[in-house]
Amino acid sequence: MTTVAAYAAPAAKAPLERTEIERRAVGEFDVLIDIKFAGICHSDIHQVREGWGKASFPMVPGHEIAGVVTEVGSGVTKYAVGDRVGVGCMVDSCRECDNCKAGLQQYCDRGPTWTYNDTGRDGTPTYGGYSENVVVDENYVVRIPEGLSLDVAAPLLCAGITTYSPLKHWNAGPGKKVAVVGLGGLGHMGVKIAHALGAEVTVLSQSLRKKDDGLKLGADHYYATSDPQTFEDLKGTFDLILNTVSAPLDFSAFLSLLRTDGAMVNVGLPEEPVQITLQSLFGNRRSLSSSGIGGIPETQEMLDFCAEHGLGAEIELIAASEINDAYERVLASDVRYRFVIDNATI
Amino acid sequence: MTTVAAYAAPAAKAPLERTEIERRAVGEFDVLIDIKFAGICHSDIHQVREGWGKASFPMVPGHEIAGVVTEVGSGVTKYAVGDRVGVGCMVDSCRECDNCKAGLQQYCDRGPTWTYNDTGRDGTPTYGGYSENVVVDENYVVRIPEGLSLDVAAPLLCAGITTYSPLKHWNAGPGKKVAVVGLGGLGHMGVKIAHALGAEVTVLSQSLRKKDDGLKLGADHYYATSDPQTFEDLKGTFDLILNTVSAPLDFSAFLSLLRTDGAMVNVGLPEEPVQITLQSLFGNRRSLSSSGIGGIPETQEMLDFCAEHGLGAEIELIAASEINDAYERVLASDVRYRFVIDNATI
Repeated sequence: MTTVAAYAAPAAKAPLERTEIERRAVGEFDVLIDIKFAGICHSDIHQVREGWGKASFPMVPGHEIAGVVTEVGSGVTKYAVGDRVGVGCMVDSCRECDNCKAGLQQYCDRGPTWTYNDTGRDGTPTYGGYSENVVVDENYVVRIPEGLSLDVAAPLLCAGITTYSPLKHWNAGPGKKVAVVGLGGLGHMGVKIAHALGAEVTVLSQSLRKKDDGLKLGADHYYATSDPQTFEDLKGTFDLILNTVSAPLDFSAFLSLLRTDGAMVNVGLPEEPVQITLQSLFGNRRSLSSSGIGGIPETQEMLDFCAEHGLGAEIELIAASEINDAYERVLASDVRYRFVIDNATI
Repeated sequence: MTTVAAYAAPAAKAPLERTEIERRAVGEFDVLIDIKFAGICHSDIHQVREGWGKASFPMVPGHEIAGVVTEVGSGVTKYAVGDRVGVGCMVDSCRECDNCKAGLQQYCDRGPTWTYNDTGRDGTPTYGGYSENVVVDENYVVRIPEGLSLDVAAPLLCAGITTYSPLKHWNAGPGKKVAVVGLGGLGHMGVKIAHALGAEVTVLSQSLRKKDDGLKLGADHYYATSDPQTFEDLKGTFDLILNTVSAPLDFSAFLSLLRTDGAMVNVGLPEEPVQITLQSLFGNRRSLSSSGIGGIPETQEMLDFCAEHGLGAEIELIAASEINDAYERVLASDVRYRFVIDNATI
């Protein structure tokens, strides 16, 4: 085991502070990654504040990890020292169930091992990316292509794959009309990726405040959902609505914007139970679904796609000492579009 | 116009009684159909009792119509006198929107013209199958293959297509596990069709009361949803859950029975708003959807499929004078599995 510096929340809702944690020794199939950058995801805040239920403390958040391999175990075949790599939301899974075998480790029947706020197979707590380094089994590590800078690549490990996976699964592409609800960390990547996939992209945001940004990111259209006229104008329009907002919405209103066989897919997970009225699904074979991050193979596919299309996240680079302020700004939707920690400052 | 005998509800919630209605003269593209049999669908009762909202009276229900062509308009090319034909829930639609052009007339942008409780394009009320005859544009008439008796074919025009369409759309077939919730008029056809499509079929019914029937109809398994153990045993099992029950269910519990990428599709339309908790969709990319009857081409395909596989409805043939009693028995789930009116008794 080695002792490494990290930023951790010592208890629920407490501010994060610099501390030290233990990382396991590099095992046969492990790689040791010197973390260069770690994105701040809204779900870090949900978990630190126990918005999704009881959590484990001290907690080192961070599942948007980009770094460089500095050591590999004797059995490692995929990576070598010096490789540029990423780690997302998962660091392990059962590897035996149908979902794992299908490369859908995020839906592992026994539950994947989450990158932090979880317990690893060795029984020790998992700690995330707000730290100097991390030890991860090579099968849960992905390669960051040369064309992508590590800082703008970090958020792809969650925000990128969380939007790429449903866009691909629901066939966003030429001839398809895709709406992205919310232009935050997830939403801005959703717009970039949907545009790169060839879909006609509409942003549905509460206001027109970020309209110029949205169009620059690749949106073809931009509407304010605070304007009831939006729901009149866009009725029956979309093949796919990708909802990145975790606050409750008027689902019936959004569902009415789907055309026949359209799907509304939620990637934001609200803290409170959200009620929807079943009747709003009737007519036109609309469906309501959800999608959670993506499997390891698809995460690699997404990184390759983003490199090929020159898609990185729009980021604000911060020092580790600014994490608590950044959390407040995320909660106030005051970030364009992802805070990324420069881990050299930890 | 001609005057024909029919059974009608003179007002909301009133018993049906024998009366006379006017049918339009046979137009250029119309066929006149001597109705031999008409099924009683739960939705007839919903509408007579204004469970789905304000309705038009007098109302002649009936959208499961099987009969014989007795006259055709000068422009009719598809049917001739003597042909065995059916009419389902729709007798017209705009014919110009994308849905109509795609053969999905049930999702017509301007709304289809329903077989009863609606207003035809000529501005007159539509009256359904509880009557001696009906005049329908040939494009909204389907052919009943020789292999199907008209009495057991009648319910296929709603119960058959309402289950066939989603089973086909969601790819029920070999290697797929399909659950049918509820073993009533819709459910029993869902079991027959899913079995004939090659799927492994499970009935999820409140009790085991109809278990023997369910297995005879083609189910491979039969579980009682009143037993909490059912939800433990079947967790993560199904590719498709076809919900034929219009009463509120514990949707979260049913959704948990879906495997990765599974869909729960509702074909029963509850009278009251039904709330579901969005969170129950999370995990395993499950989806919740609905399906409404089917288009005209698919209705013909369904009849051909049923004839090929020898699938008719299980019926109790009644005289028109028994309609009101039959309604009470439908509400008490006391019918195996569809009442069909012998229209010679009107």
